Amino acid sequence: MNRSALLHQIKRKQSVLCLGLDPSLDKIPTHLLHKNSIEEAVYEFCMSIVLECQPHIVAVKPNFAFFESIGSRGIELLQKIIAHLPDDLFIIGDGKRGDIGNTSSAYAKAGFDILGCHALTINPFMGEDSVVPFLQHPDKWGVVLGLTSNHGANDFQMLEVEGRPLYLHVMTKVASWGTPENLMFVVGATRPALLKTIRTLFPDHFFLVPGIGAQGGDLEEVMQAGLNKDAGLLINASRAILYAGSDSDYAKKSKIEAQNLHQIMRNFL
Amino acid sequence: MNRSALLHQIKRKQSVLCLGLDPSLDKIPTHLLHKNSIEEAVYEFCMSIVLECQPHIVAVKPNFAFFESIGSRGIELLQKIIAHLPDDLFIIGDGKRGDIGNTSSAYAKAGFDILGCHALTINPFMGEDSVVPFLQHPDKWGVVLGLTSNHGANDFQMLEVEGRPLYLHVMTKVASWGTPENLMFVVGATRPALLKTIRTLFPDHFFLVPGIGAQGGDLEEVMQAGLNKDAGLLINASRAILYAGSDSDYAKKSKIEAQNLHQIMRNFL
Repeated sequence: MNRSALLHQIKRKQSVLCLGLDPSLDKIPTHLLHKNSIEEAVYEFCMSIVLECQPHIVAVKPNFAFFESIGSRGIELLQKIIAHLPDDLFIIGDGKRGDIGNTSSAYAKAGFDILGCHALTINPFMGEDSVVPFLQHPDKWGVVLGLTSNHGANDFQMLEVEGRPLYLHVMTKVASWGTPENLMFVVGATRPALLKTIRTLFPDHFFLVPGIGAQGGDLEEVMQAGLNKDAGLLINASRAILYAGSDSDYAKKSKIEAQNLHQIMRNFL
Repeated sequence: MNRSALLHQIKRKQSVLCLGLDPSLDKIPTHLLHKNSIEEAVYEFCMSIVLECQPHIVAVKPNFAFFESIGSRGIELLQKIIAHLPDDLFIIGDGKRGDIGNTSSAYAKAGFDILGCHALTINPFMGEDSVVPFLQHPDKWGVVLGLTSNHGANDFQMLEVEGRPLYLHVMTKVASWGTPENLMFVVGATRPALLKTIRTLFPDHFFLVPGIGAQGGDLEEVMQAGLNKDAGLLINASRAILYAGSDSDYAKKSKIEAQNLHQIMRNFL
């Protein structure tokens, strides 16, 4: 899905909500696990929530770790879920990969060609040859870590390098390897003042914003700080939506959560 | 495999050679691909080379990207290969993962419990909560990126922070989260002078050293610069060994390559 198709969905739905799929076996409703194989349970859990939330979301972000931790069938399951997602959703494969050139090329092949994601998250620590292979696929996107939402972001990303924090050096250099048509950045929701500064420095790029809900970020502050003329945000919620309920009406409960976030977004879009 | 078991293998074999498994479908011998399914071909390719090289190597490093890029059965294949590896080999799962705490925990579960690796490579860019979950598994290891072997290492790892390059800040902080019993560092072979300095600063940790052969690092220089009293190195070769031959005697050709590297190592051990 290219930029204009993504913008079309954002305009049509008046939403920038991304649903993070982090299916944790100790959190999904137990009645699903009792009835089915683990793979069937996770498939039903993810798909029923996606379909209930579909009017309120423009993107889905499967977190590869949770599929890998299910076992060897986890990736097959992930592939099946992605293949069955409604085609009005932008699909961000969240694996935070990054390695030397030939290996990043293999990760790009795995994520774009085999799994069918529209975008893949990337860790830029290894530099240019680790990032560029993800930016060479037509109508696909690399989503590179800038400033993350977790506490550990303070350890290295905030270190001062020549008077600026490291994450700004990273984002500035990475921005020179791609364009706002094939490159997004991850900018966490937990530091809205910094998000505002980052937006002034990178007016055109989409930002994928994790960290509202369970991690403490505030949606209204993020919308105020991060919107650009095209919206320019994809705001992720994972646990807050996925685990809103635990009984047979769990997907309806998820929908209500998504609807609430969507309503706040509408006020800004 | 804990530190004393690893040291025992190094002493017994007089080797610090690690065989990197990067099975690229466009490079493995074509007669294998003609005879079998892709999974069977890759299995036979990897296992026959491992078994031929077994007397010369102490570790095996499967690169997850190449298995993921085969498709949904790639991880199943990887799991099968790891299950069938001889038990005198230290197994390093090379995925360079790293994410917020609950996600890193899921990656650790996938790599240690599901795949059965002894060690997993980790990208530290997201800080403490992204690294520590890998260091909480008894007799397992986290192998954290310090200074990598690729050209892109210049982009961020070499940036100066308070008078020292970033990678030294990263290694110093990461070292405080683990011990030489559960934490190794990746230090590339392509900058032996820096490897020597790093060894003086971190006398006790194992270093996983990629970059000899195809990437240009010199084995003798690495041995001179990086050895400590316990050896303290695992030196990886992937393409140089894997693709030494392309005919039916490919595994014998790989063995000769491994033997040659082993011979150089013996002179230092």
